[in-house]
Amino acid sequence: MALEPEHLETPAMVIREAVVLENIRRFQAHCDRVGLAFRPHIKTHKSIRMARAQLDAGAVGINCQKIGEAEVMAAAGIDDILITYNIIGPEKLARLRGLGEKIARLSVTADNAEVVHGLAGAFAGAGRPLTVLVECDTGGARCGVQSPQAAVDLAEQIAASPNLTFGGLMTYPAKGGQDNVVAFMTAAVAALEARGLSCPVVTSGGTPDMWTAAPEGVLTEYRAGTYIYNDRSLVAYGTCTYDDCAAVVVATVVSTPAPGRAVIDAGSKALTSDLLGLEGHGHILGHPDAQITGLSEEHGVISYEAPDAFRVGDRIRVVPNHVCVVSNLFDSVWLDRADGAGLEPLPIDARGKVT
Amino acid sequence: MALEPEHLETPAMVIREAVVLENIRRFQAHCDRVGLAFRPHIKTHKSIRMARAQLDAGAVGINCQKIGEAEVMAAAGIDDILITYNIIGPEKLARLRGLGEKIARLSVTADNAEVVHGLAGAFAGAGRPLTVLVECDTGGARCGVQSPQAAVDLAEQIAASPNLTFGGLMTYPAKGGQDNVVAFMTAAVAALEARGLSCPVVTSGGTPDMWTAAPEGVLTEYRAGTYIYNDRSLVAYGTCTYDDCAAVVVATVVSTPAPGRAVIDAGSKALTSDLLGLEGHGHILGHPDAQITGLSEEHGVISYEAPDAFRVGDRIRVVPNHVCVVSNLFDSVWLDRADGAGLEPLPIDARGKVT
Repeated sequence: MALEPEHLETPAMVIREAVVLENIRRFQAHCDRVGLAFRPHIKTHKSIRMARAQLDAGAVGINCQKIGEAEVMAAAGIDDILITYNIIGPEKLARLRGLGEKIARLSVTADNAEVVHGLAGAFAGAGRPLTVLVECDTGGARCGVQSPQAAVDLAEQIAASPNLTFGGLMTYPAKGGQDNVVAFMTAAVAALEARGLSCPVVTSGGTPDMWTAAPEGVLTEYRAGTYIYNDRSLVAYGTCTYDDCAAVVVATVVSTPAPGRAVIDAGSKALTSDLLGLEGHGHILGHPDAQITGLSEEHGVISYEAPDAFRVGDRIRVVPNHVCVVSNLFDSVWLDRADGAGLEPLPIDARGKVT
Repeated sequence: MALEPEHLETPAMVIREAVVLENIRRFQAHCDRVGLAFRPHIKTHKSIRMARAQLDAGAVGINCQKIGEAEVMAAAGIDDILITYNIIGPEKLARLRGLGEKIARLSVTADNAEVVHGLAGAFAGAGRPLTVLVECDTGGARCGVQSPQAAVDLAEQIAASPNLTFGGLMTYPAKGGQDNVVAFMTAAVAALEARGLSCPVVTSGGTPDMWTAAPEGVLTEYRAGTYIYNDRSLVAYGTCTYDDCAAVVVATVVSTPAPGRAVIDAGSKALTSDLLGLEGHGHILGHPDAQITGLSEEHGVISYEAPDAFRVGDRIRVVPNHVCVVSNLFDSVWLDRADGAGLEPLPIDARGKVT
């Protein structure tokens, strides 16, 4: 007998596989149509099974943020991994070299000379050089070189290092920042070519603007993570609808202590405090007028007006504001299988890989 | 050779044991002095070793929020556990009964008749009855009966259940809400006595106001969790100083891409997005004028004015806004031993026990 959501101990995260597969299929088809390689970011699911489904659908490889995540995926046989992070420190550099010896195509990013210097030292004498892309700040105001000229300078340092290969340009843009990406990258590629450097990859990313990620003649690759599950922030931004949201947190109403107040057994340790600019802590399916107005660690407080909308023992399903940080809180989630076979555990293989 | 913080892979959570032991000693001494039993909440550390240190110092037992946390602590031999939560559902009730057969003193709370009904059913025929306290809403606006009379009504239901024992009254107050606690509890105890019910325990809690938690003639017990590590929110509230903060997140500066901006390798998956009403995402020790103004999952963005305050490769120590949710993100943290023996791993035994 299939395990049904009504019998889960709560809070629990449930993933609808049919929605996942459709999300994967649809964005891969979009990339194929517009001529972009697609490299999914595994931060959202941290699951070997999900990464394989993305690769099977046509992804060129995967994107990780942590060496620990890449180690989990490499151990599962995935052999094209881009780590979009400045790797620093002897312990991490040693792990990175080990990873480079294990998989066919490992690449990382760098945005400063110290990081490039460290990478070159770590890969001295390695069997194959490490591919390094230059991270560019196209408006995201996080990491990244600040100008096309600075990108060229760093690319030259990489290209001049015997153990490194210049792999191209990478950015994670601000929401709505596609025009800036195109302008920055077009200028940087031209400046690289003027210096005799070819730029094999220009990779941008982000789920919010993914449907308008046309190559525009300069991008070669796109990276997105959240698109596989989607979440309330993406519905609010207009990227998807609630029907496209594959992941919910199932919670139980444990108290209705006062009129208009219900308390659920999902707090910040299940839903996280991420607001991403939204009001409230998630969207309760079937209760569009109710709002999760407060979270403590193990309690969520729902405010509502309709009398008797919630009763003790009721199960509710919450689409979280930001799904990536939610799946990081569960050792295992439940996959509601597309073939109707019911729920099965889906381990979060790369959860907790903080380094 | 002792492992030094400089050699940790980051982000890492480091706990100064000397500060922990002093925090434990000092609040236990306070409770002893004012005549309150102390029952620490293990949510903050989720560590068997830390719970044992609290019990060794004189705590009467521990407080958990989840059955899974209590199961971990019971397996380690801790035999007085209060779970301050409405337990609902057949699977959880079966686990609760198993726990009741295992340890000497198990108690839970309830704030409504459905929960009491479920508890009574689950403990039918049990070797010893389950102790149930009534949760009271004294202004925290979360769970809890809304009036002293409602507390009496629920206490009578508990007392009338053959498998349950009425254990007293419990509240988790609003910050600054001690006067409301005393007023509510005094009225409730009087009303219980008028109905012939004795009230063996009246328990309140919360680290912020713990130093003013005098018994006032009605409280018998206090519960606090965060006090063992402390955090930035408690410094801001005036409960402690940064010297009393035992836990820091050690991070590495990975980029200084633009003037006044540095990026560290600790984001919302290490520091969490909890603001608790504060500005910024933690206090950087030694950099009082710098602010962590932005967090994405794996990046923290520091804004600062002093030129060259941060360089790529620098290690920084961040006192998090809310330490309880931070320790929940690490499988293992580092204990900086009080005896000077350096760092050793401290497993977070009850991490991820979501149910």
